[in-house]
Amino acid sequence: MAPSIDELSVSTIRGLSVDAVNAAQSGHPGAPLGLAPAAHAVWRKMRFNPSDPKWFNRDRFVLSNGHACALLYSLLVLYKYELTVEDLKQFRQLHSKTPGHPERLDTPGVEVTTGPLGQGISNAVGMAIAQKQFAATYNKPDFPISDSKVFCFLGDGCLMEGVSSEASSLAGHLQLDNLIAFWDDNRISIDGDTACAFTENVPERYKAYGWHILEVQDANTDIQAISDAVDEALKIKNKPVLIRLVTTIGYGSLAQGTHGVHGAPLKADDLKQLKRSWGFDENSNFYIPNEVSDYFAEKVESNKKEQQAWEKLFSEYKEKYPKEGAEVQRRLEGKFPEGWKDNIPSFTAKDKAIATRKLSEGVLDYLYGVIPELIGGSADLTGSNLTRPEASTDFQPPSTGLGNYSGRYIRYGVREHGMGAIMNGIDTFGAHYRTYGGTFLNFVSYAAGALRLSALSHQGVIWVATHDSIGLGEDGPTHQPIETLAHFRAIPNLSVWRPADGNEVSAAYIAAIEGTDHPSVLALTRQNLPQLEHSSIENALKGGYSIWPAEKPDLIIVSSGSEVSTSIDAAKLLAEKKVSVAVVSIVDFFTFDKQPLEYRLKLLPDGVPILSVEVLSTFGWSKYSHEQFGLNRFGASGKAADLFKFFEFTPEGIAKRAEKTIEFYKGKKVLSPLHSAFEELK
Amino acid sequence: MAPSIDELSVSTIRGLSVDAVNAAQSGHPGAPLGLAPAAHAVWRKMRFNPSDPKWFNRDRFVLSNGHACALLYSLLVLYKYELTVEDLKQFRQLHSKTPGHPERLDTPGVEVTTGPLGQGISNAVGMAIAQKQFAATYNKPDFPISDSKVFCFLGDGCLMEGVSSEASSLAGHLQLDNLIAFWDDNRISIDGDTACAFTENVPERYKAYGWHILEVQDANTDIQAISDAVDEALKIKNKPVLIRLVTTIGYGSLAQGTHGVHGAPLKADDLKQLKRSWGFDENSNFYIPNEVSDYFAEKVESNKKEQQAWEKLFSEYKEKYPKEGAEVQRRLEGKFPEGWKDNIPSFTAKDKAIATRKLSEGVLDYLYGVIPELIGGSADLTGSNLTRPEASTDFQPPSTGLGNYSGRYIRYGVREHGMGAIMNGIDTFGAHYRTYGGTFLNFVSYAAGALRLSALSHQGVIWVATHDSIGLGEDGPTHQPIETLAHFRAIPNLSVWRPADGNEVSAAYIAAIEGTDHPSVLALTRQNLPQLEHSSIENALKGGYSIWPAEKPDLIIVSSGSEVSTSIDAAKLLAEKKVSVAVVSIVDFFTFDKQPLEYRLKLLPDGVPILSVEVLSTFGWSKYSHEQFGLNRFGASGKAADLFKFFEFTPEGIAKRAEKTIEFYKGKKVLSPLHSAFEELK
Repeated sequence: MAPSIDELSVSTIRGLSVDAVNAAQSGHPGAPLGLAPAAHAVWRKMRFNPSDPKWFNRDRFVLSNGHACALLYSLLVLYKYELTVEDLKQFRQLHSKTPGHPERLDTPGVEVTTGPLGQGISNAVGMAIAQKQFAATYNKPDFPISDSKVFCFLGDGCLMEGVSSEASSLAGHLQLDNLIAFWDDNRISIDGDTACAFTENVPERYKAYGWHILEVQDANTDIQAISDAVDEALKIKNKPVLIRLVTTIGYGSLAQGTHGVHGAPLKADDLKQLKRSWGFDENSNFYIPNEVSDYFAEKVESNKKEQQAWEKLFSEYKEKYPKEGAEVQRRLEGKFPEGWKDNIPSFTAKDKAIATRKLSEGVLDYLYGVIPELIGGSADLTGSNLTRPEASTDFQPPSTGLGNYSGRYIRYGVREHGMGAIMNGIDTFGAHYRTYGGTFLNFVSYAAGALRLSALSHQGVIWVATHDSIGLGEDGPTHQPIETLAHFRAIPNLSVWRPADGNEVSAAYIAAIEGTDHPSVLALTRQNLPQLEHSSIENALKGGYSIWPAEKPDLIIVSSGSEVSTSIDAAKLLAEKKVSVAVVSIVDFFTFDKQPLEYRLKLLPDGVPILSVEVLSTFGWSKYSHEQFGLNRFGASGKAADLFKFFEFTPEGIAKRAEKTIEFYKGKKVLSPLHSAFEELK
Repeated sequence: MAPSIDELSVSTIRGLSVDAVNAAQSGHPGAPLGLAPAAHAVWRKMRFNPSDPKWFNRDRFVLSNGHACALLYSLLVLYKYELTVEDLKQFRQLHSKTPGHPERLDTPGVEVTTGPLGQGISNAVGMAIAQKQFAATYNKPDFPISDSKVFCFLGDGCLMEGVSSEASSLAGHLQLDNLIAFWDDNRISIDGDTACAFTENVPERYKAYGWHILEVQDANTDIQAISDAVDEALKIKNKPVLIRLVTTIGYGSLAQGTHGVHGAPLKADDLKQLKRSWGFDENSNFYIPNEVSDYFAEKVESNKKEQQAWEKLFSEYKEKYPKEGAEVQRRLEGKFPEGWKDNIPSFTAKDKAIATRKLSEGVLDYLYGVIPELIGGSADLTGSNLTRPEASTDFQPPSTGLGNYSGRYIRYGVREHGMGAIMNGIDTFGAHYRTYGGTFLNFVSYAAGALRLSALSHQGVIWVATHDSIGLGEDGPTHQPIETLAHFRAIPNLSVWRPADGNEVSAAYIAAIEGTDHPSVLALTRQNLPQLEHSSIENALKGGYSIWPAEKPDLIIVSSGSEVSTSIDAAKLLAEKKVSVAVVSIVDFFTFDKQPLEYRLKLLPDGVPILSVEVLSTFGWSKYSHEQFGLNRFGASGKAADLFKFFEFTPEGIAKRAEKTIEFYKGKKVLSPLHSAFEELK
């Protein structure tokens, strides 16, 4: 019997995938072979437009098991996204559009960067939250301008990672019925049979999370059953759906069902027998039957009509609801509301001392009112992070009685990593969402995996990271960050703001909100800080500036956050001894490094010794200073004041080190550490 | 009716806990009030000896909800560990023995440092693994020299964290029936009612993991029911047990059942009414009724007899099984097998080029044979990390047919964070376990929360972190570490070895295995590296040494790992131009920084410009160099050779930068970056 067009399509997808891996002699053929029928069936149901891959009301597809990317690329080629067979031939080669894991910046049609396991499914939860929130905010009777779904493939590895547990538990709580996940139950991971480490009952676990479970017993061949399952999933209300796909890794390969087929190219013989089994010429390569091309093209035509219908609907919407229509239009164009930052809080030295977390609360209260696309939350530290705008409603299923889906405040629970990955999903959904999440600075580290991906894939999420030093006091060293800022400052494309007062907090928020192509961490104090005489929003936006000028300084102190005011006090102490000390506030390394060298050298010039002062690890501060005063040990439990005193982060402690630095460098010629011998090569 | 002695004991525990929080005017009274009956009931069942808190066959108690530490400290005081009411009065004060979260180094009787949520329960899984492995290895018929249990309290926060999901899933798979966990189901977290973010069915989830579930419906008062549940749990075979304790946070307080009682001291009136309700004088403070003291002392006496019986048993064991007995004795004394490192692999420049991950495999094969307390595994990357000694057996429940409990190779599954926390548990169990876990370097970051605790609490676990740079090639930027080493090097008390060849790999292992008081990360290559002419184990153990000497060098290159040989090749290129370049291999910052300044200054002296070369973030390298060549951007997917060429990490690319550095510093007086103006204050 001749294969059906769907069977032929699946064979074509399988063929392109294994040929790509074979061309690269590197990659993962196993999952594409097993998942091709599911991918085909799901994409037949999806709304998308390859010539407008960012169409707002498209369905989103997330490949959480990103190593299976040959599968996704094959689909993108067949559907004629901006990706061709030539690109497949460059699979995993430098500068190709088909990198070894899906990268959202490299390949049109890739929604989100995946590969690190557990992230994609958690991103998908974020996308589903964003869609729900958008729909609840803007949809009107007869005007469902947003009703897209999120489809996500994931493997055993994703299910084992804790980040996916966090996000999946929250997805169940939030009753996200716009999310359909497909578990590739192939019983194989890199170490071999999942029997060796992963014998839990996944469907029961997801049921416990509040998900609806469906199963397809033969997802290797039964395209119709997969298709039916999707139809059924789309009908489920108030629950995300997990569809268990029983598959065989490397289906059809001589090595099927073994981990040998997971991450290594197939042998030449195996490729040949596979192609024969599909009815292809055994020597064919990247073969696309014409009827398959046509079949995929038809689907695209039908999808395009759906987009046209949506455009019409949206156009009518804008007429009938001009206010909302204009707002949606603005958001889809990626523009900010006019004048949004005009009235952001600013301060003078006469204003009272306030903790920067409290100042942050004031800014969030303000931003909430002027930026409707601002949506945030906290990992169960709302009262400590002060992240909940007074006027906000919780994002909750209405049936809970605790909020509704148009709410813009998310109760993440104690799930920092999940929160980070969900924020990436919200950010990637589109509609210009600006999203933030609160936790203690030290526990942003739990989310390192997600934060790194935000930076890599240019997602402008914002971490409101309070309790940023030993200044948090009694909770002790398990809660006191030491290495944390060094870690984050070393991540490319990440802003790490540590504001010293109210104006600097406002600047940090302006930069973070405007920084749609990079994540930002805002490190904020638990304790009060004074408003500084020379601070300004405008200067702070440069990432570093003179916060305490001095004529012909004997020493320059570079500092950040809570240590800036103490450093200024040290400068005042030393002034009494006729020692001239200037203080530079480095609010964000990333932004400061972008300033012209001339500007930076004016602040940190040749000929003056520079001392850095920050009550965290000194690691990295030598790029701005000759000497470093910091905390290269873990903190301690005690009253904040006692801790600062014990570690000598007092005006006297700083002054003592300042004097020793001046003494040491007396008569020595010092060069500014800003110089680079090969700047042009960087 | 007069309260029973158990009720009186519970009131006493509650009283001490709230008085401690009140004295500090800081801390968490809610959980201790709710959990005191459970803590009391469990400790009545436990074997332990306050005057020998490290007795090997004691039962272990882990407070995963570490913020409830006032509860634990109260028990330790009542059982007369080295902790008194005076210490309770110093709760959360600087340098006290009663810090804000339990710290294993500060307080006798605290098994493990907790506070960061989700860690303790995962540590408990590690302890249970260690106990099982020890028992299976050494117990003999009629000689159960190890039969201790692990009891762990945890709260909703711990259950929400992904790390606990990872560890709990593995615990179910491993059928750890020596682990009994108690869930404080008080329905309150910091954000308020758990209804706002945590509505999953926890018992069903744990059932899905393979745990046995028990419930106590009134754990506020029903001490007997808790006690019965423990008895029942102790009878369960082949499953860890989760006992759900339905409690009221802040039980008895006027604010009971609200998050107001979670993290703030009780009001004076509330304290008074509580004490009256217990039948105490309302003005009493840190009150311990004599009959309670006696009751606890009796338990200790009975426990001491158990220890004496065990000592007798062990003594007979040593007679009957002298070989095993001597080995156990040695391990309990914390000594290494004699001559264990005598035959560790060493290399000469004539040996062939090998990837350091492969060299690591050779060392592990060797160590497996000579150190019976070595137990390791991988987070589902065994074939890539090369972490499985050839002779090893998997640590598995015998019923799986995949191994047995005396196995020393753990299949962690894709659970890096869980693995990190489990390793801490294995390490803390005692019996001198030396434990390692493998994953890609980039994914050690998933476990940042656990790694930081290893460093803080001096746990000598070892990360075998392979694929340590863009040298991993095609998997691309999601898998290529950039900031990772900067992050780890900034963590106090952590060794980060990045060996350049075989001798340096052996040195790294010697240091890591001997480093029982600090964790170690071993960053290893996927790609082959040549054996270096001037490398030696002895020198590498200093953390940094001259790997390519040069007379009167014009420039010194400091480098690590895979870039050392390329830097030497650059030096050779430059020698042809009569430019003299020395190369220093910095194998581990932590170890190098401990060397005498004199030694370090000999390597990095005044008067010579220094260039660092490492294909990762340059962040932090300025502490050893004037100029830095690194990768301050994310990597790319492509063949490793193409990537190194594109980023110019070639002899030519390094030589170019070396020449520019020499040119820039010509005529300028350079100081060694090792100088410190206030070393004595550090």
